[in-house]
Amino acid sequence: MSIAKSDHPHPKRSPFTLTILGAGSSTPTLRLHQTAQLVTIGNDYVLIDCGEGTQFRLIEQRIRPGRLRYIFISHLHGDHYFGLAPLLSTLNMAGRTEDLYLFGPRGLDEVLTTIFRVSNSRLGYKLHFQAVDPDKTVFLLDHPLMSVQSIPLEHRVDCTGYLFREKPGKPHLLRDKLPADIPVAYLKQLKEGEDILDADGSVRYAVADYTEPAPPPRSYAYCSDTRYSDAIIPQLQSVDVLYHEATFLEDNQARAAEVFHSTARQAATIAEKAGVGQLLIGHFSSRYKEFEPFLSEARAVFPETYLATEGQTIDI
Amino acid sequence: MSIAKSDHPHPKRSPFTLTILGAGSSTPTLRLHQTAQLVTIGNDYVLIDCGEGTQFRLIEQRIRPGRLRYIFISHLHGDHYFGLAPLLSTLNMAGRTEDLYLFGPRGLDEVLTTIFRVSNSRLGYKLHFQAVDPDKTVFLLDHPLMSVQSIPLEHRVDCTGYLFREKPGKPHLLRDKLPADIPVAYLKQLKEGEDILDADGSVRYAVADYTEPAPPPRSYAYCSDTRYSDAIIPQLQSVDVLYHEATFLEDNQARAAEVFHSTARQAATIAEKAGVGQLLIGHFSSRYKEFEPFLSEARAVFPETYLATEGQTIDI
Repeated sequence: MSIAKSDHPHPKRSPFTLTILGAGSSTPTLRLHQTAQLVTIGNDYVLIDCGEGTQFRLIEQRIRPGRLRYIFISHLHGDHYFGLAPLLSTLNMAGRTEDLYLFGPRGLDEVLTTIFRVSNSRLGYKLHFQAVDPDKTVFLLDHPLMSVQSIPLEHRVDCTGYLFREKPGKPHLLRDKLPADIPVAYLKQLKEGEDILDADGSVRYAVADYTEPAPPPRSYAYCSDTRYSDAIIPQLQSVDVLYHEATFLEDNQARAAEVFHSTARQAATIAEKAGVGQLLIGHFSSRYKEFEPFLSEARAVFPETYLATEGQTIDI
Repeated sequence: MSIAKSDHPHPKRSPFTLTILGAGSSTPTLRLHQTAQLVTIGNDYVLIDCGEGTQFRLIEQRIRPGRLRYIFISHLHGDHYFGLAPLLSTLNMAGRTEDLYLFGPRGLDEVLTTIFRVSNSRLGYKLHFQAVDPDKTVFLLDHPLMSVQSIPLEHRVDCTGYLFREKPGKPHLLRDKLPADIPVAYLKQLKEGEDILDADGSVRYAVADYTEPAPPPRSYAYCSDTRYSDAIIPQLQSVDVLYHEATFLEDNQARAAEVFHSTARQAATIAEKAGVGQLLIGHFSSRYKEFEPFLSEARAVFPETYLATEGQTIDI
């Protein structure tokens, strides 16, 4: 399914969707692909992580990489970024000239620079790289529709999650109620939340009568890879959708802690404590042949849990 | 199909097979994978090139990467090696301890070293890297069953083909003709091609009577990527199987020359001039939707041409 075709429950709102491209973990299998997600913000595509083969997932989903503007990489384990150099190369071969913005751990730029240097390649577009401080929350992107901030995670290497917060929208005009002869100039003023006054200062058109408030801003948080960490809960408070890794089930809780991963129960505990709207879990270890146990383990703690399903697009 | 199960026309001979894992070129499509081939030499696996996703092709073909001992990379365009770091990482996660031998262009080691350094990874096995001189033919490997030498190619970046030549076999014993009471020690001597003499110097068992000569040594040459080059013909003389890239058809001959690639007709011309047994063509440009025209164009020059078909295993 192309994310461009997904239905939006608020037709007046800009698209803000999430497509799961890969929900697997580091050991390659034919059942799941490696981690990658695509977020649509208005007309822009945002890629979060880019495991090996991600460019083929984009082709499968008929997602045109030309609309890609921002890429966020969580950490430098291969299953989260080995598809990046191939994707950047393909964009280059396709003649891209538009700037591309890349956020990720220090060292990512050195890998890419080395790869392009040894093949005498020069990108025909500008790749802006910003190294993300793994130890503190930083505002990374001020998009017209959205801000993005980092979420410090706890993994074996520097690792960062990302929080996408929609900016508050302007009031919507109630066109049915507007007088037919209202000057167009007034409409903009009403949308800005300003009453229209007469010369004597009395209210001619009140914002409250002719608009409805914009729906509350939406938010999406991506947290992978990480062991259970209470520290991220305040930042995740009330986000609409939280993706949190659940590499293991509770039967492997000790193993999870040892390798700085989480269990389904731990992911659900974070969701419950942060009071999020919905929890998506993924990054399932290849040792598990079925995913339903992840769902039931998590739902026992946080009922609004869903499995991240490859190819699925959801509205945030 | 697992290459371990393939039938061998000479049951007494060690396996020497070729499996096509990817026959596509640089632009990613869902029809063809990027370049990778697996050669079996006796009990060892040899990988030639390793485009993105090659480790998934190995899983699909049920090829256990534990038997992989040698990897030859032709050049540093991504469609020929972006699957290498992922594969090496997976071998490491799987607990590999056996040495692995990697041959490829200078710079490949720097890419890998950088990738492993930025993720604080240490390989648990020894990776021996040998940089291949792109300008001359070099003997690279002296395997008990096989020698491997480089083939200098002509591409936009340093690029090397590889020639696998089986070592001459020992004579085969004709067990039906051997006397039942012949001492075991004599058998080894006969296989070494030495007659068994009596004390007086007369021949008791003649090699000619009890053995048949080993079949002629087999050979496989891999040539990708390259523009048409007469210079490689002497080295390819009479090889059993030649893989030669055919990125374009003759209708794009000018484009082929410009980007240092070959047409199907040019690949066939090389095969014809070198008098090889069989020609395999691959690395088809994504601009072509059908591959039969490659076959007919090449067969007009060299009838024993076949398309490299993904998943196919052939005996050399």
